Amino acid sequence: MQIALDAMGGDYGSEELIAGALLAVKQTGLSVSLVGDESLLRKHLDVLNPDSKSEKLIKIVHSSQVIEMNEHPVDAIRKKKDASIMVAFDLVRRGEADAAVSAGNSGATLAAATRKLGRLEGISRPGIASIFPTLKKPVVLMDIGANVDCRPQHLFQFGVMAAAFSRINDVKNPRVGLLSIGEETGKGNSLIKETYPLLEKSTLNFIGNVEGRDVFQGEVDVIVCDGFVGNVCLKVSEGLAEAAMQMLRDEIVKSFRAKIGYLLARHAFKAFKKRVDYAEYGGAPLLGIDGIGIICHGKSSAQAIKNALLEAAKMARGNINKDILDSLAASNNVQHLEM
Amino acid sequence: MQIALDAMGGDYGSEELIAGALLAVKQTGLSVSLVGDESLLRKHLDVLNPDSKSEKLIKIVHSSQVIEMNEHPVDAIRKKKDASIMVAFDLVRRGEADAAVSAGNSGATLAAATRKLGRLEGISRPGIASIFPTLKKPVVLMDIGANVDCRPQHLFQFGVMAAAFSRINDVKNPRVGLLSIGEETGKGNSLIKETYPLLEKSTLNFIGNVEGRDVFQGEVDVIVCDGFVGNVCLKVSEGLAEAAMQMLRDEIVKSFRAKIGYLLARHAFKAFKKRVDYAEYGGAPLLGIDGIGIICHGKSSAQAIKNALLEAAKMARGNINKDILDSLAASNNVQHLEM
Repeated sequence: MQIALDAMGGDYGSEELIAGALLAVKQTGLSVSLVGDESLLRKHLDVLNPDSKSEKLIKIVHSSQVIEMNEHPVDAIRKKKDASIMVAFDLVRRGEADAAVSAGNSGATLAAATRKLGRLEGISRPGIASIFPTLKKPVVLMDIGANVDCRPQHLFQFGVMAAAFSRINDVKNPRVGLLSIGEETGKGNSLIKETYPLLEKSTLNFIGNVEGRDVFQGEVDVIVCDGFVGNVCLKVSEGLAEAAMQMLRDEIVKSFRAKIGYLLARHAFKAFKKRVDYAEYGGAPLLGIDGIGIICHGKSSAQAIKNALLEAAKMARGNINKDILDSLAASNNVQHLEM
Repeated sequence: MQIALDAMGGDYGSEELIAGALLAVKQTGLSVSLVGDESLLRKHLDVLNPDSKSEKLIKIVHSSQVIEMNEHPVDAIRKKKDASIMVAFDLVRRGEADAAVSAGNSGATLAAATRKLGRLEGISRPGIASIFPTLKKPVVLMDIGANVDCRPQHLFQFGVMAAAFSRINDVKNPRVGLLSIGEETGKGNSLIKETYPLLEKSTLNFIGNVEGRDVFQGEVDVIVCDGFVGNVCLKVSEGLAEAAMQMLRDEIVKSFRAKIGYLLARHAFKAFKKRVDYAEYGGAPLLGIDGIGIICHGKSSAQAIKNALLEAAKMARGNINKDILDSLAASNNVQHLEM
């Protein structure tokens, strides 16, 4: 299994990304192609000084350009044909990699994937899923920002794709919920009301509407929403988690006793932070493209990059796109029979 | 100043609500009309045994019916003309109360207010605002669920109304942001893109798009969104706050040292919880009706009810509806001049 890693993206620089690749290689025997400026990557690799077994599993593929975080995605991929993210997805297109992973500009990653690999047959809109921590198993939410104005058919397809991703992650018969503002059928805006029957008639394990507060309870495996709502959800959660930690710190420093208490409990705090920290997760899978791609948080640690590389390999090994196509066909058959 | 309190709503029963009324009365000399089953309310009031000065400021207004939390709002107010919430808003309509407060069925509260008081002139859709805690001053978010399918004009009016509410709460020139998925102009779905110019041309202190993660930073005083997105925001925040506390507790009980630490720091935890607990806030103002109403969280403590009663009095004293009408007229004038 060969995964292409855009080694120029991410807020912490190439060294952190390469460190992540080495962790993945060492742990699993996966091969990784580092894509980017060859001399720069070689220098970082030398500093990290991998053992000879790991070194054999790492390849450097040169690319002369980089897309910056603030560049307009579509313009950038048009102008920079030799950008690391473009070259990474080109490796996938040519069959020289099974998947590509990037912690760079998310929009450009999606645009490059769509440009190089195209859409899966029957999928109207590729999108981005995200994994949220919950009190039980993580939940997959889709879409989180690729598609801001959606029709019911798009939301239905997000459900099909996210359920396939959930199965790849060993959930047998993923429970699919539709994000709304009340659990009862008929609650929600017009998009939700029109999407409900499509999910209900499908072969998915549709459990009905779920509310914002259900996101973190772990009683649902897949949550379907449009990219505007999903993105707000994701960023509100990130923002609240950060602000809450800050508020708690503010309260703790007010008293000496509380400070001592915090020191004693700091392992628990660290474990908690890790559990809710999105940057620790393996990244957000791009679903609906004819290939495999994962977008990582810009602030991904080496550990997070390792997780993303392993996840990409899992998606390739499990042939997620065949699963999506089969599941789409099954639901379409049911819907046609009923018409 | 006379405030009507629906003394039959709320998850903790009438006694908690009456305790809240007594706190408000004692602290401020406000008069409160408790609306509900007279003999039941009298009994609870006797148990709480207020001093004679407080007792004079409390009145009981009998109503024979109660709308339950799970009833359909519009059906319920049609069938139960003598429900406590209907009688409370009737007191406002007849000028016998300056505002009404309820911790009962939110939808029924909104429906009763609209039925009894009607809309403010020029307002297309009354809505519900909510106060979110932030690292700095609280932020007002509107709408949080009354209007799930909105047009740009509705969002613009939410901005006008929520800014007036912010001014009532002593924010001089409230900064108004439009909730979107990127700060740059032109980011967002079609509703957001069409609302942007309306806010930009208005007399409001519009600062542009804000993202989900900005909600808790305190760099904006008013956030405008449709009721579907606002409700998801609110419930995701509530759900995450609860789940995060649960996860942190789970981590803490794993080690003896962390448990001792928690005990030492528990004052800080309590202060933190109070700071993020929505049930502690004064409730959500109904804006755009020709009168004043506040919807409280079902789980409101006596303290939260007191805060809601004081907030209602503040809105009445500050004549918030005149402010809304003036502000709407000012922005409409500017918009007409530019056409």
